[in-house]
Amino acid sequence: MKIERIGLSVLCLILLCVAAVAVGPPTCPASNAAAAGCGGDGDGEWEGEFFPGIPNIKYEGPKSKNPLAFKWYNADEEILGKKMRDWLRFSVAFWHTFRGSGGDPFGAPTKFWPWEDGTNSLAMAKRRMRANFEFLKKLGVDKWCFHDKDIAPDGATFEDTNANLDEIVALAKELQGNTINLLWGTSQLFHHPRYMHGGATSPELGVYAYAAAQVKKAMEVTHYLGGENYVFWGGREGYQSLLNTDMERELDHMARFFEAAVAYKKKIGFNGTLLIEPKPQEPTKHQYDWDAATAANFLRKYGLINEFKLNIECNHATLSGHSCHHELETARINGLLGNIDANTGDPQVGWDTDEFLTDVGEATKVMLSVVKNGGLAPGGFNFDAKLRRESTDVEDLFIAHISGMDTLARGLRNVAKLIEDGSLDELVRKRYQSFDSELGALIEAGKADFELLEKKAMEWGEPKVPSGKQELAEMIFQSAI
Amino acid sequence: MKIERIGLSVLCLILLCVAAVAVGPPTCPASNAAAAGCGGDGDGEWEGEFFPGIPNIKYEGPKSKNPLAFKWYNADEEILGKKMRDWLRFSVAFWHTFRGSGGDPFGAPTKFWPWEDGTNSLAMAKRRMRANFEFLKKLGVDKWCFHDKDIAPDGATFEDTNANLDEIVALAKELQGNTINLLWGTSQLFHHPRYMHGGATSPELGVYAYAAAQVKKAMEVTHYLGGENYVFWGGREGYQSLLNTDMERELDHMARFFEAAVAYKKKIGFNGTLLIEPKPQEPTKHQYDWDAATAANFLRKYGLINEFKLNIECNHATLSGHSCHHELETARINGLLGNIDANTGDPQVGWDTDEFLTDVGEATKVMLSVVKNGGLAPGGFNFDAKLRRESTDVEDLFIAHISGMDTLARGLRNVAKLIEDGSLDELVRKRYQSFDSELGALIEAGKADFELLEKKAMEWGEPKVPSGKQELAEMIFQSAI
Amino acid sequence: MKIERIGLSVLCLILLCVAAVAVGPPTCPASNAAAAGCGGDGDGEWEGEFFPGIPNIKYEGPKSKNPLAFKWYNADEEILGKKMRDWLRFSVAFWHTFRGSGGDPFGAPTKFWPWEDGTNSLAMAKRRMRANFEFLKKLGVDKWCFHDKDIAPDGATFEDTNANLDEIVALAKELQGNTINLLWGTSQLFHHPRYMHGGATSPELGVYAYAAAQVKKAMEVTHYLGGENYVFWGGREGYQSLLNTDMERELDHMARFFEAAVAYKKKIGFNGTLLIEPKPQEPTKHQYDWDAATAANFLRKYGLINEFKLNIECNHATLSGHSCHHELETARINGLLGNIDANTGDPQVGWDTDEFLTDVGEATKVMLSVVKNGGLAPGGFNFDAKLRRESTDVEDLFIAHISGMDTLARGLRNVAKLIEDGSLDELVRKRYQSFDSELGALIEAGKADFELLEKKAMEWGEPKVPSGKQELAEMIFQSAI
Amino acid sequence: MKIERIGLSVLCLILLCVAAVAVGPPTCPASNAAAAGCGGDGDGEWEGEFFPGIPNIKYEGPKSKNPLAFKWYNADEEILGKKMRDWLRFSVAFWHTFRGSGGDPFGAPTKFWPWEDGTNSLAMAKRRMRANFEFLKKLGVDKWCFHDKDIAPDGATFEDTNANLDEIVALAKELQGNTINLLWGTSQLFHHPRYMHGGATSPELGVYAYAAAQVKKAMEVTHYLGGENYVFWGGREGYQSLLNTDMERELDHMARFFEAAVAYKKKIGFNGTLLIEPKPQEPTKHQYDWDAATAANFLRKYGLINEFKLNIECNHATLSGHSCHHELETARINGLLGNIDANTGDPQVGWDTDEFLTDVGEATKVMLSVVKNGGLAPGGFNFDAKLRRESTDVEDLFIAHISGMDTLARGLRNVAKLIEDGSLDELVRKRYQSFDSELGALIEAGKADFELLEKKAMEWGEPKVPSGKQELAEMIFQSAI
Repeated sequence: MKIERIGLSVLCLILLCVAAVAVGPPTCPASNAAAAGCGGDGDGEWEGEFFPGIPNIKYEGPKSKNPLAFKWYNADEEILGKKMRDWLRFSVAFWHTFRGSGGDPFGAPTKFWPWEDGTNSLAMAKRRMRANFEFLKKLGVDKWCFHDKDIAPDGATFEDTNANLDEIVALAKELQGNTINLLWGTSQLFHHPRYMHGGATSPELGVYAYAAAQVKKAMEVTHYLGGENYVFWGGREGYQSLLNTDMERELDHMARFFEAAVAYKKKIGFNGTLLIEPKPQEPTKHQYDWDAATAANFLRKYGLINEFKLNIECNHATLSGHSCHHELETARINGLLGNIDANTGDPQVGWDTDEFLTDVGEATKVMLSVVKNGGLAPGGFNFDAKLRRESTDVEDLFIAHISGMDTLARGLRNVAKLIEDGSLDELVRKRYQSFDSELGALIEAGKADFELLEKKAMEWGEPKVPSGKQELAEMIFQSAI
Repeated sequence: MKIERIGLSVLCLILLCVAAVAVGPPTCPASNAAAAGCGGDGDGEWEGEFFPGIPNIKYEGPKSKNPLAFKWYNADEEILGKKMRDWLRFSVAFWHTFRGSGGDPFGAPTKFWPWEDGTNSLAMAKRRMRANFEFLKKLGVDKWCFHDKDIAPDGATFEDTNANLDEIVALAKELQGNTINLLWGTSQLFHHPRYMHGGATSPELGVYAYAAAQVKKAMEVTHYLGGENYVFWGGREGYQSLLNTDMERELDHMARFFEAAVAYKKKIGFNGTLLIEPKPQEPTKHQYDWDAATAANFLRKYGLINEFKLNIECNHATLSGHSCHHELETARINGLLGNIDANTGDPQVGWDTDEFLTDVGEATKVMLSVVKNGGLAPGGFNFDAKLRRESTDVEDLFIAHISGMDTLARGLRNVAKLIEDGSLDELVRKRYQSFDSELGALIEAGKADFELLEKKAMEWGEPKVPSGKQELAEMIFQSAI
Repeated sequence: MKIERIGLSVLCLILLCVAAVAVGPPTCPASNAAAAGCGGDGDGEWEGEFFPGIPNIKYEGPKSKNPLAFKWYNADEEILGKKMRDWLRFSVAFWHTFRGSGGDPFGAPTKFWPWEDGTNSLAMAKRRMRANFEFLKKLGVDKWCFHDKDIAPDGATFEDTNANLDEIVALAKELQGNTINLLWGTSQLFHHPRYMHGGATSPELGVYAYAAAQVKKAMEVTHYLGGENYVFWGGREGYQSLLNTDMERELDHMARFFEAAVAYKKKIGFNGTLLIEPKPQEPTKHQYDWDAATAANFLRKYGLINEFKLNIECNHATLSGHSCHHELETARINGLLGNIDANTGDPQVGWDTDEFLTDVGEATKVMLSVVKNGGLAPGGFNFDAKLRRESTDVEDLFIAHISGMDTLARGLRNVAKLIEDGSLDELVRKRYQSFDSELGALIEAGKADFELLEKKAMEWGEPKVPSGKQELAEMIFQSAI
Repeated sequence: MKIERIGLSVLCLILLCVAAVAVGPPTCPASNAAAAGCGGDGDGEWEGEFFPGIPNIKYEGPKSKNPLAFKWYNADEEILGKKMRDWLRFSVAFWHTFRGSGGDPFGAPTKFWPWEDGTNSLAMAKRRMRANFEFLKKLGVDKWCFHDKDIAPDGATFEDTNANLDEIVALAKELQGNTINLLWGTSQLFHHPRYMHGGATSPELGVYAYAAAQVKKAMEVTHYLGGENYVFWGGREGYQSLLNTDMERELDHMARFFEAAVAYKKKIGFNGTLLIEPKPQEPTKHQYDWDAATAANFLRKYGLINEFKLNIECNHATLSGHSCHHELETARINGLLGNIDANTGDPQVGWDTDEFLTDVGEATKVMLSVVKNGGLAPGGFNFDAKLRRESTDVEDLFIAHISGMDTLARGLRNVAKLIEDGSLDELVRKRYQSFDSELGALIEAGKADFELLEKKAMEWGEPKVPSGKQELAEMIFQSAI
């Protein structure tokens, strides 16, 4: 036997075998649905419910002990002049909920949902999509998000892959009906080995072209599904080492890629918001969209600042050394707060844990920014959060989402309390009131030069500096929780 | 179709399909070697070389530009009274080099070595073992390490699994011959879903028993192969959340497990050193063997301090907030420095990157500890290091190992220079010389009580405190590099 | 002019000038109370209240908006069978509250309390002590803690220094009366330049003796004041660089020092608990009492494990890479939980911020450990927490303490809710119930060897592994908040 | 006695007493030079050398063991077409070298240089300035940097303060002569309590004006001294808590302040470069100039991008989660690399340690960026680095600087080797060569739209993706060291 022969014959088999490993539960290739070793029920229809023991989740109020009920999220209740559902605009992330396998760098998948048949067939993709919509309905969530590769299997050629995607997307559109809509779509440019050096920033021109073709299609199907936004998370758009990287050229390529995306969006009449999702690192050592400020600098440098907003993820925020509140405020102040990936990390952990947010204090700070922003629409809160690897019951999917929704709902209620109380706003207003003066107005208008300011400083002598009252601010904040 | 039926029938298929995902390249189950979709050459013999373009790696000295030659590692050259090979005792880690797939939490495998046929058959396992020994010989390394699950496929039952392991181990013994030996073996208690809550610390008694049975077998085959050590890395022995964990009970279970391991080791006459490998976290939030001091406290608490040593990994050291040098010194001072997992992390990255160490300064500090320890035997330097996901050429396997070996060899040469020069040792000796006195001797013998010390303090008045000379120490250190 | 002359004459002046810089607000030396440039009112008595606008702080319940009232801490209310005051045993830290200057590495002091006269005289020390007791009484806290150097100025000789301390301590004893007592004393072995290389671990024998004499005196005055504990925080007991350090010898010295402390404690009949306070680093790169496990390993290695307990500080916990809950549980499980330094850090900040804890979730986890430990007595909760540098109003001292006390009180109330509800305990109990069996008992008794376990594993086949239910545990936990 | 009286009379005394605490060694106020308790030699002249035992530092080559000689830095040797002195443009930082006290958050000052007399008098300021120039000359460095507050004592009024500064600056100009020049000046807006909430971002308008007046003067004296740059480090321009902060308003104020600085610079004909020095945090929780990208975004947002460059500090880089190399490249690519604060941090430490860089690998990466940038002029390498607190010998000041200079010189020599060898550059060039094609040119010109790219992707099928060769790149890099 010769090396070459094996190399050639096995490569594509292996590629097919593993394509979905990190994204979804272990499955087999679409082209191989009924083959030995890869399950055989992929073409069968699923009859009845996917979640037979789970009721529609209802609001029961804070005293309820029912894990399958909301204690704080009451969708149609009005808070601060809007329904909770309109402030929160919750969305389920297809990838974590329906393709999350429980695998991690040291462990195999642990999730074996009853509706999975072990194949990666089109039939299985459809069945999974039906499960998604049942899940949404039982949970009372009317938005969802997906990557192209989550929802449909690859075909043998690019054209076949697109055809598979079209077939699934048609079903999704039907299942959306009038009650559910797509918060956003995105394309997965990080999982396949072809993207190991990046998509838009790959040193290989062929990969750049491939990535463009993939985004083109993903934007089309997002548009077709009525998506309100389109997201770019550049998981591989970064570097592992500067020694073998031409960062400047890669950033230029990324800008050209985004320009082409903007042009194509306009060409097809897609009016959704384009969103960049900052993340500092992982899987790369450095990701080009490190944090909100870094992404904003990139957008400004290349003249794209008016074409994009940001999708802020709390876990990415803390990995970049910032609080989530900081990243939200930075995005807001730069006019870029478009969407929130609602999750949280572990403060002692240096990688992306994508946990459901259950910290009420944190949720209150998140909602402070959202309310200041006047809400997030057309963005929303996408649950880019996953079950712990060790959580393997179907009901855990519901418990986790309920917990996350309740926590943010509670945050919203707390913000309402803070606003009603007014003392925190008043504390802040007072701190800056010396600028609500004639000279303050001059300064803020850019009309106070150094000579004028020096004259005033000499006139006034040593300025008084009052206490910052941080402990009082924290006391007020905690009292609202 | 009913949920239950799929659930039952598909579960084991899926388990088989994915068993090796994170450990090895994508392969198919042993029981399914020639099945459709899983390659068919698993039973064929491999003729000729695995690394046809790669020569035996030779020492060519620091001026060589040949990537496939050593510039600093000259195995038989004597340094500080020992051959370099005896100071360094290099070992290749089977898992990274032969089962590393390039997969990461966001990406599919990228390594498709020519000798892999896409199966997880026994035949493939044998072929891979032959590749391992050719690699060792070409590289000029005479030790290796493995996990049980790396080298042989699981069978349908525990007995079958053991039989598979025996078959491969017999081949390995034959291939070892008189020139290559096993630095250590270990068992993999972290990858399979059954171990998701831990092995020795799983809340499930059945898993505890299963883990014991697996370690029993792995110790037996390590003994059979003449292994000099046996390692415990408890990747899942920790917790994700204290809220659902009884840490005290889990630690007690871990102690009982280690006691049983010690007893079994003695029973079968295995004289190798038992090694615990500290790691702070990942995949768990907290791993019970957090760092050297934590592992030492555990061993002391449970009366196991004389039965174990530590396997210090540099990347684990830095993840725990310590320098590698610190962890080595802590192990050494506690009489526990047994082995080194030679790798490095990225100082800006919060997860285990397992890179080959190429920093000469770091390597010099590592070798300072090793030389102070009088060497590592019966331990050694195991290359628990992997190619970057993006490095996909066969020659990269050689380049990486050569680079790691040269770096440590250079560290050793630098330590020799420092010792010969003597000024760093002298600087340290002088700092403590006030204790080389009568009162110093009393203090160090535990015979100086507070009254005596107070009397002296009053007598002497304000003590003189000389400069710490850290910058001078650093200058001397850097000059040796 | 010659270098030597200035060097000699200025050195002690400078030392006196700066002795209190980092510890207290800027003052002048005791010996120089009325000198030009150093204020002159140090010998005058202070008439009337120190906190004239501040009432005695009372419990007003959760609806109160009064910043100077407790909303959750109701000292005499019984929770889980004990009064809140007995669970919480609050203590005010003299150093932060009365000597905290607001200085930081980049900024000068900012606190200029009205009772400070700018001197470091004995009279000023007495006035400050009176302020402390008024503060305690108004706050309704009946315990306090101090360092020797906080409360009394140094004299020209060791004997004079001790005499100063005696004079202040006599006043403190009088002010304590029957209603207030000393939670613990400690000696400051980190601020003075003589301790720059450590106290017990200084390479200078003279410094070791000086430190011993200082601790001897501090233990005596702690005993005199009826202190319930004595704390060792070894801020300089560590290293900046391993290159100029003999860590092994330093650790041996530290052990000898602690042995002498134990002997002296017994000799003088002091029955208080000796406490070690772990901290990972800052001001050193590595502090020898890195975390609870490291301190426990040290105590075990040197046979001191029964003579000491630990004082766990939450901010130190997170700096060492652990949650505070983890450190408390580690201390508890090792039988070492003696006291808590109640504060918190900033999760995005890499140094000790010593903030008042205002996170209710965190406080609930802290109280879970305290309740499991059956309380902390004779230890307590010492507020080792300081105002932000920018908080400069006297009332901020009260607001901060009230906020910290309320937060922990709320944590206690939440624990009571969790215990009453019972579902979290039940979840944990169930996870481990497979060990509540015959084989489980054998394992836990150390009587299940590998052969028996292997037999069982083979008999049982693949074990079932239930969901870890972490999300459910978090939902239950959050519901209690 | 009444509170008010003490409050009023003592406040200014205290302020004067402590003004220099964190910046300089402990001294007394200018107005109080000969007062009791504050030394009395402040007005005497210093005769003879400040560093009598220290020779002019010379280049002796790599084999020298003389700590007071250069082994790698040979100022006039030509490397890569320029003299080493012109590539490196070294500068001594007045604050660390002459005002560094050794104080830290837990400890008093430790440096008592023989020339210090314990006063903060003008005479002392002059003597210190003479010491600075002797230091520069002996070290063979011809540039220096300072903060306004480092070099001259404050007076009773703003006018007096300016007069003091003028007097010292006149002396400095004289001492500069024709051989030494000012790399940059800056103003210290972080140490005094008035700046506790910030200077340009203080919520107090009076402080904003005061800061403007101070910067105005500092720019004037920098101009007078022929400074080549002017630096803004906004140590307090950030926040401690978002709860009491209006970040948007503060950022607007900061922009107005910088605009006024630009206008004033032009008005007075100062042609030096304005530099912003990013730092992520410390002393604030978040500093507005977090890193290079954040500063660039700010500059772009407010239209200031062409008026400023950046001063990159390596320790700040790593505190922000980036390698120093990354920050240098980010600055370079954004056209903003203006100056380097040459120091390093400890990879395991979370605060600014400002150590002299002694890691040759790191220095080589730094020099890679500098050489790519064509050098740094009119910027340079300022040693913003300090002795460890425990290093208290005068010679340590020289050893530390020599070590830092040699390390960077060695880095430069290594870069020359890498460039001469050419293989690293070639490796990078090859990685991107697919873009050196017709389609590549179209893409880079922004002329390849998604349709064209999709067409190509379909045509080509699966792209080939070569190995990233990171290990080879690292091997080449290490071989040059």
